Amino acid sequence: MINPESLALGTKRNTIMELADHGRRRAAIVGRENVFDFSIGNPSVPTPEAVNAAIVDIVKNGDPLAVHGYTSTMGDPRTRAAIAEDLNRRFGCEASAEELLLCCGAAPEVAAACKALTVPGAEIMVLAPYFPEYKPYVEQAGAIFRIVPPDVPDFQIDFGVLESMITPNTSAIIINNPNNPVGTVYSAETIRTLAQLLERKSLEYGHRIYIIADEPYRELVYDGAVVPFIPGIYPHTVVCYSYSKSLSLPGERMGYIYVPSKAQDGRDLYHAILGAARAMGHVCAPSLMQQVLARCAHLQPDLSMYARNRSTLMEALTSYGYEMAPSSGAFYLFLKAPGGDDRAFSKRAMEQDLLLMPGSDFGCPGYLRLCYCVNYDTVVRSLPIFKALIQA
Amino acid sequence: MINPESLALGTKRNTIMELADHGRRRAAIVGRENVFDFSIGNPSVPTPEAVNAAIVDIVKNGDPLAVHGYTSTMGDPRTRAAIAEDLNRRFGCEASAEELLLCCGAAPEVAAACKALTVPGAEIMVLAPYFPEYKPYVEQAGAIFRIVPPDVPDFQIDFGVLESMITPNTSAIIINNPNNPVGTVYSAETIRTLAQLLERKSLEYGHRIYIIADEPYRELVYDGAVVPFIPGIYPHTVVCYSYSKSLSLPGERMGYIYVPSKAQDGRDLYHAILGAARAMGHVCAPSLMQQVLARCAHLQPDLSMYARNRSTLMEALTSYGYEMAPSSGAFYLFLKAPGGDDRAFSKRAMEQDLLLMPGSDFGCPGYLRLCYCVNYDTVVRSLPIFKALIQA
Repeated sequence: MINPESLALGTKRNTIMELADHGRRRAAIVGRENVFDFSIGNPSVPTPEAVNAAIVDIVKNGDPLAVHGYTSTMGDPRTRAAIAEDLNRRFGCEASAEELLLCCGAAPEVAAACKALTVPGAEIMVLAPYFPEYKPYVEQAGAIFRIVPPDVPDFQIDFGVLESMITPNTSAIIINNPNNPVGTVYSAETIRTLAQLLERKSLEYGHRIYIIADEPYRELVYDGAVVPFIPGIYPHTVVCYSYSKSLSLPGERMGYIYVPSKAQDGRDLYHAILGAARAMGHVCAPSLMQQVLARCAHLQPDLSMYARNRSTLMEALTSYGYEMAPSSGAFYLFLKAPGGDDRAFSKRAMEQDLLLMPGSDFGCPGYLRLCYCVNYDTVVRSLPIFKALIQA
Repeated sequence: MINPESLALGTKRNTIMELADHGRRRAAIVGRENVFDFSIGNPSVPTPEAVNAAIVDIVKNGDPLAVHGYTSTMGDPRTRAAIAEDLNRRFGCEASAEELLLCCGAAPEVAAACKALTVPGAEIMVLAPYFPEYKPYVEQAGAIFRIVPPDVPDFQIDFGVLESMITPNTSAIIINNPNNPVGTVYSAETIRTLAQLLERKSLEYGHRIYIIADEPYRELVYDGAVVPFIPGIYPHTVVCYSYSKSLSLPGERMGYIYVPSKAQDGRDLYHAILGAARAMGHVCAPSLMQQVLARCAHLQPDLSMYARNRSTLMEALTSYGYEMAPSSGAFYLFLKAPGGDDRAFSKRAMEQDLLLMPGSDFGCPGYLRLCYCVNYDTVVRSLPIFKALIQA
């Protein structure tokens, strides 16, 4: 009596695994430095020194039972207070510890938010191109997964199409800002228009349509781009945040959910998310890292390495004739596939040991995702291959 | 459109929260040392020095990108190999890294195992008294929660009752060994009889009935008690383990699932659990702690403090006239409630600032759970209160 959906999800080889397999095989033959892996969004900037210093200090000088002990399910009140203070200072909001819930990263946060916003027949929307794990998160919640087609070539939101897809069953829309895989930033104007539409539709259908704001890349922006703070525009928002990218701690599974009390039924929604998380086995976020965050939540990432990779790649690839989507966030470029077939181009690139994810895997054929969270040497030495590929 | 089950689960105050609230209120008035809190199963023995030393060494000398980076979803192969080696050395099995999946503690492991073993109509059984979170784990999976009544006063298994409750829809039975809340150890004989019954019923109904073995207390045993290694008796077992108790790391959310390849459809079951975990937002277990475990998985806990608390309490309470269930594991005693009403006795004890969980919360009225993971001073100074309560 094995669950067939779980089995399919745990068995299926996806493109990123196949690229990784190829990368490992080729690294053993040609050397790791000669595999140009732009397929995985794993931070290439080390965590700030202050984070490691805090870990060592807490482990050496803290009360060992408290350092590694359970916190409350919501998380240590001091850590939540530090995060609230950081949010208030940066975004002028009025967040409090009681509105925050510390979790094991953004993934279980989005899964729990989806579950909390699901009643029989509920639909949860995503904007293509989208992070592919949203589909299992929405479906495990029991909701119907609705994909809004990509708004090519600007990658903001086509509000005509979005409006036509909202139904009386629409419960929430997931907004990933900055967006993975494009690296685009949904502007304040886009979010304001979205808020007006959701306000109108919530009134029309007699229930609130929430935004689930998945924001692990919030601090990774370039060229002066500004990521709007969505709850400041539309309070009916569940923010799912992770320190994976901003503090380069992806493996430590540390993030928070913020549900503003000003959201409609905000306290109920907070508690429903807590209940949903508990049913999936959430006990508390990792305790040592919670204490580290009580000291480090205000730290900002050093983006200079990503910025250099980004500008070098943008300049060179443009000069070779590549076209790309507007991108001023995260560590992604979204290239138009030369020839139009993204899977074919990804395969040709792979034969040259250059790994790029096809846009089809994100619901957007005809494009390729390039992760520039790599070392600079990889960037520089990959350029001739990019050049040869587009000229072939 | 807020999910009512999630809301209920996230809102409901349970007894343990009420006791904790009372404890905090009273600590502010009479002092923390005068609240005798035997209600929470939080380790009171610090983690071995080697664990903290490993954390510091890895943070100071490891590659920062690898230390805090993603591992594979299954977990770092070296850590899994170290755990497999430890299992093989101690239990004479043939575990391999490929049969292990590192997770954020036993809670999400049990939740994922339940999901992986659920098809429409599936039933998952637990033996009362049982850890109350099993109910939401089973129900979030979509399975029906079946409670086998307690086998009073021995707290092994009443096989007549168990057999009568197994149906063609029974998918799995959760065995918590040593048991929370009783502290009893299901003996090898009990597990062998269970295996024979499940073998027979699996044949009768034409599908395998699995054991989900929840074993966070496996190493916490006294008086020479031995916890049988269930897969050695019944290979169709999913072991859910956590380092929360054995290494006193409950907040760090670190454990593993072991699915023997010898289990029927073992590889499919492993992958179904992986898929179920992914859909609930499992990305990887905390990476720094994974690397610590690669060095520390073989460490055994120092039980001397628990053993002293246990023998002092058993001796004194017995001399006062308390009766208790056979208990040689975990850090629990399960007292027969004087007067028979466990909720009433818990309330009377609370009025004396002595906190005990009523057995009713674990599906076993008439008993009280006493957690002796407290400091020795608390044990000694609580004895006059225990004496006065039973004499009243």
